[in-house]
Amino acid sequence: MEQRISIVTLGVTDLDRAHRFYRALGWRGQEVARTVFFQAGGLALVLWDRAALAADCGLPADPHVGFGGIALAHNVRSPAEVDDLLRDAAAAGGRIAVPARVTFYAGYAGVFLDPDGHPWEVAHNPGLPLTEGGELIVPDLGGDAATG
Amino acid sequence: MEQRISIVTLGVTDLDRAHRFYRALGWRGQEVARTVFFQAGGLALVLWDRAALAADCGLPADPHVGFGGIALAHNVRSPAEVDDLLRDAAAAGGRIAVPARVTFYAGYAGVFLDPDGHPWEVAHNPGLPLTEGGELIVPDLGGDAATG
Repeated sequence: MEQRISIVTLGVTDLDRAHRFYRALGWRGQEVARTVFFQAGGLALVLWDRAALAADCGLPADPHVGFGGIALAHNVRSPAEVDDLLRDAAAAGGRIAVPARVTFYAGYAGVFLDPDGHPWEVAHNPGLPLTEGGELIVPDLGGDAATG
Repeated sequence: MEQRISIVTLGVTDLDRAHRFYRALGWRGQEVARTVFFQAGGLALVLWDRAALAADCGLPADPHVGFGGIALAHNVRSPAEVDDLLRDAAAAGGRIAVPARVTFYAGYAGVFLDPDGHPWEVAHNPGLPLTEGGELIVPDLGGDAATG
């Protein structure tokens, strides 16, 4: 297995609502056959019907709407950008699950939920700098790389 | 909001088990403070305690282990690679939720679940070709780009 992700698909119960939300945050994609494809760096972020996605994964379509076990993060370059994006997310209809605050890793971050409850952490993390193009390249973290 | 994802964090109930699984599939990362960071193209795939991740998202730690609403995909360059990777995933302790089969989009794909039930679709999709470096660049899909 190559060490990469090709697609992150978010299951949604109302595609138009979800598409409007991401559009309001500035995302632009292509909608084909009730599926929205956004280019996101070297992968695609896709919005698709939640029940169809569950079936596609061979799993029961599940009405559960609590924590799904996965979180996305969108890192930015300053604390002010964290505040700005959380404000934009709230204005677009997102729910602020965690207001911005100083984090245990000496960063500054908050969390919004998209209309389907998918969590996005918005973070300024000085320990994980971004490239000019917005890529996150994990630096040497000084841990036990031999086990990793 | 820039159109990118910085981190995908998978909540896990047994970090060592999860780390072993991804190592068996060839992933190499850094483990620091009971957190594993894998470089995955321009983002990081992170393994972290599921309850801590829920708390970090301001959500109740939830024992639910069904479909969480998000699926990851790992696209490959041939049907044979789909078969190979699903076999490797099963050998590493993953569960095959969907055996490889021809898909509605005229591709060939199957799904494995990692030890925490996170679904990975392994797909050969001729309509979404990969670059030499493994990036997925969404082509013109011929849909209603004006709405996207």
